[in-house]
Amino acid sequence: MRTSQFPLNTIKEIPADAEIVSHKLMLRAGLIRKLAAGLYTWLPLGLRVLRKAENIVREEMDRSGALEVLMPVVQPGELWQESGRWDEFGPELCRFKDRHERDFCLGPTHEEIITDLVRSEIKSYKQLPVNYYQIQTKFRDEIRPRFGVMRAREFLMKDAYSFHLEAESLQETYDRMYETYSRIFERLGLRFRAVLADTGAIGGSKSHEFHVLADSGEDAIAFSDRSEYAANIEMAEAVAPFETRKPASRPMEKVATPGKTSIAEVAEFLKVPPENIVKAIAVMIGKRDLDREWEEFCLLLLRGDHELNEVKAGKILGGFRLATDDEIEQHMGCRAGYIGPVQMSGAKGVVNVVADRAVPPMSDFVCGANEKGFHLTGVNWDRDQQAPKHVHDLRKVTEGDPSPDGKGSLRIARGIEVGHIFQLGSKYSEAMQATVLNEEGKSQVLVMGCYGIGVSRVVAAAIEQNHDERGIIWPQALAPYQVALAPINMHTSERLKQVAEHLYRSFRNEGIEVLFDDRKARPGVMFADLELIGIPHRVVVSERLLESNQAEYKGRQDADAIQIPLEEVVPFIRSRLNGIG
Amino acid sequence: MRTSQFPLNTIKEIPADAEIVSHKLMLRAGLIRKLAAGLYTWLPLGLRVLRKAENIVREEMDRSGALEVLMPVVQPGELWQESGRWDEFGPELCRFKDRHERDFCLGPTHEEIITDLVRSEIKSYKQLPVNYYQIQTKFRDEIRPRFGVMRAREFLMKDAYSFHLEAESLQETYDRMYETYSRIFERLGLRFRAVLADTGAIGGSKSHEFHVLADSGEDAIAFSDRSEYAANIEMAEAVAPFETRKPASRPMEKVATPGKTSIAEVAEFLKVPPENIVKAIAVMIGKRDLDREWEEFCLLLLRGDHELNEVKAGKILGGFRLATDDEIEQHMGCRAGYIGPVQMSGAKGVVNVVADRAVPPMSDFVCGANEKGFHLTGVNWDRDQQAPKHVHDLRKVTEGDPSPDGKGSLRIARGIEVGHIFQLGSKYSEAMQATVLNEEGKSQVLVMGCYGIGVSRVVAAAIEQNHDERGIIWPQALAPYQVALAPINMHTSERLKQVAEHLYRSFRNEGIEVLFDDRKARPGVMFADLELIGIPHRVVVSERLLESNQAEYKGRQDADAIQIPLEEVVPFIRSRLNGIG
Repeated sequence: MRTSQFPLNTIKEIPADAEIVSHKLMLRAGLIRKLAAGLYTWLPLGLRVLRKAENIVREEMDRSGALEVLMPVVQPGELWQESGRWDEFGPELCRFKDRHERDFCLGPTHEEIITDLVRSEIKSYKQLPVNYYQIQTKFRDEIRPRFGVMRAREFLMKDAYSFHLEAESLQETYDRMYETYSRIFERLGLRFRAVLADTGAIGGSKSHEFHVLADSGEDAIAFSDRSEYAANIEMAEAVAPFETRKPASRPMEKVATPGKTSIAEVAEFLKVPPENIVKAIAVMIGKRDLDREWEEFCLLLLRGDHELNEVKAGKILGGFRLATDDEIEQHMGCRAGYIGPVQMSGAKGVVNVVADRAVPPMSDFVCGANEKGFHLTGVNWDRDQQAPKHVHDLRKVTEGDPSPDGKGSLRIARGIEVGHIFQLGSKYSEAMQATVLNEEGKSQVLVMGCYGIGVSRVVAAAIEQNHDERGIIWPQALAPYQVALAPINMHTSERLKQVAEHLYRSFRNEGIEVLFDDRKARPGVMFADLELIGIPHRVVVSERLLESNQAEYKGRQDADAIQIPLEEVVPFIRSRLNGIG
Repeated sequence: MRTSQFPLNTIKEIPADAEIVSHKLMLRAGLIRKLAAGLYTWLPLGLRVLRKAENIVREEMDRSGALEVLMPVVQPGELWQESGRWDEFGPELCRFKDRHERDFCLGPTHEEIITDLVRSEIKSYKQLPVNYYQIQTKFRDEIRPRFGVMRAREFLMKDAYSFHLEAESLQETYDRMYETYSRIFERLGLRFRAVLADTGAIGGSKSHEFHVLADSGEDAIAFSDRSEYAANIEMAEAVAPFETRKPASRPMEKVATPGKTSIAEVAEFLKVPPENIVKAIAVMIGKRDLDREWEEFCLLLLRGDHELNEVKAGKILGGFRLATDDEIEQHMGCRAGYIGPVQMSGAKGVVNVVADRAVPPMSDFVCGANEKGFHLTGVNWDRDQQAPKHVHDLRKVTEGDPSPDGKGSLRIARGIEVGHIFQLGSKYSEAMQATVLNEEGKSQVLVMGCYGIGVSRVVAAAIEQNHDERGIIWPQALAPYQVALAPINMHTSERLKQVAEHLYRSFRNEGIEVLFDDRKARPGVMFADLELIGIPHRVVVSERLLESNQAEYKGRQDADAIQIPLEEVVPFIRSRLNGIG
């Protein structure tokens, strides 16, 4: 394509509301334009990228055996009432009435619609399993849409829904989707991790998120440096230490630590490393009986250099909150900042203690003395205090922790969630009575999985991961064009024009997607535009180069250009594309 | 693809609300399923057809130089207020408020959005002309959605919008779109006509509709049997007769025609053909001054065998209505049924007369005598009454009329509108101030064209045009699969299975889209399904056929099957595909 016929819409100014680099670059490179808050028009260059992502997703979904369908954007409220989500869903669900005053909504997701389809189309276990997908426009009325297409209100999504008679079959399709997603993100040329995700309140048993790694990512993820293991940081297991407890070597002593209440202060004051201190965190745990609700005081113990992982603690304790200073005083008889698991003489009754796995192996450690202005040093379990009975994984993993699968150590990175696979179980099929006859001829409720990829988000995430100060650096598979052909001052030289046109035809004959910059623009403008829009390979021809029958090649990430004989340009690019793509 | 992995969703029952054949067949063949009134889910088989239509549209739009974009489905109300359409548009425009109580609507069309984009992106005449298109979901809240995807509320549309400095450039793009549309419908394999359309109240100067010919079509169109000429029946010009008036050969006589008031009755009673009778239609024409409104009585004259074309008459007369019997009596002094243009002795003042072009060449004709129970015969213009001064094209064309372009005669057919190209002029660009700097550096309002194709409607129209009592007959380009491979009782014969699998692989290696019916179904069920879903070519293999090393071939429209040697099946199908497609 020629830039004279496929105009670039690059701009210099960065709109004030663009906060992240992908949003800025997508506007500057002319990929998108804002229509209203969270609503974007894809310009021709951007749409080429979006379609490339869409096509790879479609090819791999087809290859997995999933069946493509297309469901309406507008959905009848009745089905949402049937599933219960009409009331559950917040104002993100855009609801409206049609001209006959019937309830409708714009689909933020399609569980209800596909479940309604399946309950009427699928009658027998023989038709199972089945996995339907679509690539389609979604709408979520985000309260604060931002970051361009990264968190827009209208977006393009691939959503798939599988139906099964048994959990085993669901697990098989789930595993196939895991592989399919991995292949999709590999083909897209993105560095990603499939991370174990928290299934949270949605219910369902198992879930993985697919994250594109990028420093600007909203989520922290932990992954092994030597295996496939990766998990949302909230989910990553901190394995029990391998070491057993060392024998006690020092006596327990009470030392004055006036005004030193934080781990950092105590460590510095006593000249001990934080990992030799036991941190006690007082919390109130919500309890409930048939006829009453109450709270129980509890002490959580962590190694001084570790942080409480509230998601893990919540799963173990149920609902909880941090205790107030007053509550600590009331239950421990001691001011906050000096509490600990030993010599709880001021405590009101027995205090529940839950320790992180890293705490029991500690010896000769420091902890609060349960007396204002004092800590204990040289404390040892079972000698000075019975070792904690309730030991769990309570902490956030840290860089360098051993990987829970026993292979390598953990690294922490930030990621952008672009995909999600989820075992839904029977939440929708039960509410909407999606049943089939099983082998015994009896009606059986289906189990269900769902699998999403934010296709428009993938484009933004790719830019977050791949850019420099000059613009976008597209992975080969997403690049709107593979090669840019940039002749210098072509419009003043008939000979140069002929060479450029010949090269253009040669690229096209080879099936190489080439953007021929045939504008009457200065070289500086041309190069800046081509780097901004991120074409991976650039070929320059000029009168000067023609003298030695050469062209100039520069990869988007290369520091310097190199010269290549004119007749070798096309084969050279072909080998580059094969090597990279 | 195998039917074991790509299940057919054919059904026997025809839902009660399916009125037309395409709707019935799309449901029965499992192409679509209804979600709610006017909302349909495309099942895998239907989606394959939809995507084929979509891809041909995209390829030809790209080839025409149009630039693909993607605009949001959800549109801000502000822009519609700016263009004036927020108030003009009826309840078909689905309006709603977002969570911040701002006005939005679901796009039934995108003139406002593209005009907003262009006014900010296009600054100079040097960037013109430009033609943006998209293929995208639209929503119109039809009061009575019916006919399946033919008149659905949510549908897939290709809409394009071009922008120009001058009308001449608009005309060039309009012509290119005319050619592009013609190529699209040719490639789709549909019999169609591009018809001159009434631009109606929308304004703008020129418009063509593209109709797929089908007996069930809602619109009547007139087209030449020897040229490209075609027009909406309301728009087709009835050319002036070539013949000049014959000299009078009979005297004028008043004859009694008691109770004979219609043309048919008079013709039969007087034994004259209707084309020798002048029909007088009394109408009231609305008139308006600066300070008053009134109506004027007027007589329209047509040849007895011709019908008044109210659209044409309206353009010539302005607003008008048929006169009541009382008004006729009052203005003509004679009962309706006996009025005519001669001897208006009872008339109140001078009566305006407007004649169709076919009337002045008449001689020795019959007309009402302006006296109850009497007609005149042997009437001749200029001898008995001054020939009409106001002569216009007032009538509907009829089968056999000469084509207005002078080539051949007109035929009348019914059509389904699937495309529309339109010169919008500056309606939107003026209201929304879309201007550029012209060559003199002065601000100039753009002129605009718009070009639509109802992609989902094309699929239904193709079926209306191509079906029989057994099901759909897909044109090659739209067929979900090109070939069906149907082995008989394959599951009981290992040898047959191997042959079938080998054929399946051979088709696929040839790049032929083949549907391999590997279900354990009886031959009758298999054949009925394959004919219902309309696969153009069917290859059958069976144990019996294997004995003579033959396969059986039947085209979807063939009366009988033929036998072909097994090894020639693939080349035979290839030659069929090349011949047809």
